[in-house]
Amino acid sequence: MSTIKFTLPEDAIPEYWYNAVVDLPNPPSPPLHPGTKEPVGPDALAPLFPMAVIEQEVSTERWIEIPQPVRDVYRLWRPTPLYRARRLEKALNTPARIYYKYEGVSPAGSHKPNTAVAQAYYNKQEGVKRLTTETGAGQWGSALAFASALFDLECVVYMVRVSYDQKPYRRAMIETWGAQVTPSPSPNTEAGRKILAEDPDSLGSLGIAISEAVEEAAAREDTKYSLGSVLNHVLLHQTVIGLEALKQFEQAGDYPDVIYAGHGGGSNLAGLMFPFLPDKLSGKHDVRMVAVEPAACPTLTRGVYAYDFGDTAGTTPLLKMYTLGHGFVPPGIHAGGLRYHGAAPLVSQLVHEGIMEAEAHPQQGVFEAAVLFARHEGIVPAPESAHPIKAAIDEAIRCRETGEDKAILIGLSGHGHFDMGAYQRYMSGELENFEYPAEAVAQAAAAIEALQPGS
Amino acid sequence: MSTIKFTLPEDAIPEYWYNAVVDLPNPPSPPLHPGTKEPVGPDALAPLFPMAVIEQEVSTERWIEIPQPVRDVYRLWRPTPLYRARRLEKALNTPARIYYKYEGVSPAGSHKPNTAVAQAYYNKQEGVKRLTTETGAGQWGSALAFASALFDLECVVYMVRVSYDQKPYRRAMIETWGAQVTPSPSPNTEAGRKILAEDPDSLGSLGIAISEAVEEAAAREDTKYSLGSVLNHVLLHQTVIGLEALKQFEQAGDYPDVIYAGHGGGSNLAGLMFPFLPDKLSGKHDVRMVAVEPAACPTLTRGVYAYDFGDTAGTTPLLKMYTLGHGFVPPGIHAGGLRYHGAAPLVSQLVHEGIMEAEAHPQQGVFEAAVLFARHEGIVPAPESAHPIKAAIDEAIRCRETGEDKAILIGLSGHGHFDMGAYQRYMSGELENFEYPAEAVAQAAAAIEALQPGS
Repeated sequence: MSTIKFTLPEDAIPEYWYNAVVDLPNPPSPPLHPGTKEPVGPDALAPLFPMAVIEQEVSTERWIEIPQPVRDVYRLWRPTPLYRARRLEKALNTPARIYYKYEGVSPAGSHKPNTAVAQAYYNKQEGVKRLTTETGAGQWGSALAFASALFDLECVVYMVRVSYDQKPYRRAMIETWGAQVTPSPSPNTEAGRKILAEDPDSLGSLGIAISEAVEEAAAREDTKYSLGSVLNHVLLHQTVIGLEALKQFEQAGDYPDVIYAGHGGGSNLAGLMFPFLPDKLSGKHDVRMVAVEPAACPTLTRGVYAYDFGDTAGTTPLLKMYTLGHGFVPPGIHAGGLRYHGAAPLVSQLVHEGIMEAEAHPQQGVFEAAVLFARHEGIVPAPESAHPIKAAIDEAIRCRETGEDKAILIGLSGHGHFDMGAYQRYMSGELENFEYPAEAVAQAAAAIEALQPGS
Repeated sequence: MSTIKFTLPEDAIPEYWYNAVVDLPNPPSPPLHPGTKEPVGPDALAPLFPMAVIEQEVSTERWIEIPQPVRDVYRLWRPTPLYRARRLEKALNTPARIYYKYEGVSPAGSHKPNTAVAQAYYNKQEGVKRLTTETGAGQWGSALAFASALFDLECVVYMVRVSYDQKPYRRAMIETWGAQVTPSPSPNTEAGRKILAEDPDSLGSLGIAISEAVEEAAAREDTKYSLGSVLNHVLLHQTVIGLEALKQFEQAGDYPDVIYAGHGGGSNLAGLMFPFLPDKLSGKHDVRMVAVEPAACPTLTRGVYAYDFGDTAGTTPLLKMYTLGHGFVPPGIHAGGLRYHGAAPLVSQLVHEGIMEAEAHPQQGVFEAAVLFARHEGIVPAPESAHPIKAAIDEAIRCRETGEDKAILIGLSGHGHFDMGAYQRYMSGELENFEYPAEAVAQAAAAIEALQPGS
């Protein structure tokens, strides 16, 4: 009863990304200008992103070719393995078959390089010299630093002040790859100076860091901005995960009945699940797709589906998505990558239309599941990835009770090597649970009412 | 000019370990009893190790079959990739071809699980319930914790007090896998109590931790001891590394002219190099094999080749090896895995007979090489693995000057995710170099003179 690994040969790295937009039952709602409430055209994004990326953001092609230099970098760690968790199945005494697709084998330790490498490549192609971005827990910042090093780009990472101080090791990793890390709020930007004037000891937030990174990119000719989730092109680049998984299930002679993935901004989830959409929408396979989010930041399960800003400061176009309100600051849970007030518009639409589902879990149970997983499968998962593990274990236990032999697929987006402090807190009983307050939903809806078209 | 990865299919995981002892030009010197100076028989090891392991320690079979349950666990991360470092070659503008065999893809992040899994399996087979061991920096402790979790064994790790306090994340990883971590010196053992009585604030040492782990294993019927390097059976288990590398070079249509590996106790080095020995000894391939050690702990380059204790307290049999004296305490360099006063007897013999070579480097240059490697190849190496990277880069630069197109193989034994504090110190200019004092060699030789046979 040992774990089974499904490896693909190197030439099985996908040659095309899959653009799910073309297969959606309904067209996506366009981003709106917050002043005019009119759709924002591609031109408005030109100061921030290279044209190739902007074209992907609005593309109506089903398959978009992956440039050879991007595939060459993917080869450092792709194809990633799909495992069948036979040891965990045995421990749970379940008739279910549990699989996990593991993205933690990348040099940055998560799925984030799948898009970082593509974005760095397109920027380099178009003559850009510097990239700016923001990072909270540090996974995205390290992925972009890694990609920038390989394509010889300067990289400036605005790191949320409290993480900069509390997570020096992620910062050291970003710096090892040659990127510059600036604690945010910083005196380098108007947005940062404004916050510091009000509160010199500000701990910062992802929203402030985004504002700083965007401001610097917009102000400099040689510099563009790079985002690690939410937008269509980011989700597109991540579809290599699910495209490989499809091939690996073919190899296994199986097909998932249900797929669980952690949900923060939506990129890992979409990357894994979107390639399974055609089979679901055509009725060929009735696969459930379940987003798993933290109870402390339950965007898809408790948020409202409406237009809202992507950042806290309200500088981005309005996006139609599930949101807890752009002013919502989630509590300091350890799954830092899942602390986002909004969600990818494409994922939001699919949940709204009932094609995808969502569930939320408090972090104590999530860490309990993570430790169980580590002791049977060997891999210590990132707290973000432990969310779908929790949901999958619950499902496998239900299968034990009903006798169903479902095939369950987990999106294991990264390892937890930089999160051992959180594990330590869990094991010493110091980890707290947070609930999203009942009255907050109505407050969130009211706060963004004025942003809706026609209001 | 992108990095090339040589992947092997899963069925290429070796079915046999290679026992180099049978191919050595001269028989190894036996371990001696410190009192009688007579060879120690296998029976003397029975309280500490399972019989299968003791048999491997003295085996004269060239090939030893890897049990299927061990191969089943190996499959979680094996075969490990061999890379050709084309980006690094380009950055160095060298005609040399640089390859690296990467063991950091294991769940514990290093080569250590190759033997931990085998040792846990044999102990489980013989009815052992608990394993004890010691750990300094934590790589070995986490590998044995991982292996014990998969074979359902209790695991007790004596962790050097100063590491226990300063490296809480490695400790948390060990505990996540379910092992118990005890700071050493501890009140649990006589050895620990003796030290604590003399110095209640003792920071501990690897030597003390070994004494505690051995004492507990010897005292309990259900408990055995597990060692992560130095002994023949540990080196044997690691030969999966070199056996895979041989196949991968065949795939690449190439053969190394020189192999560099970091040297601490010798297990990673032997695991990579021993499978290349038959070709070298038969004259088929004139491959140089170079051990790379820290200048602060230069066992092979400055030590004496003599009988000495394996531990600081002097409780083990005497081993014929290069040693800096069992009382030598190396300075606190960041390559914690290379801070050992001795060396594997088999590796020592090969260096003594001129079949292997050795060189030593101070840590500043080692970290400079590590950062260069990370920026071009993407992987952030462990400080231990950065030693052979430094040596290989020096060699590649020599090739640039001479025009030689040598094939260079690096043993990249692990990643540096738990060593980012060291990188941070290097990048902020706080990393100090240590030299081994000139007079220390004569002192070391004098200190162990009485241990030699006939004295």
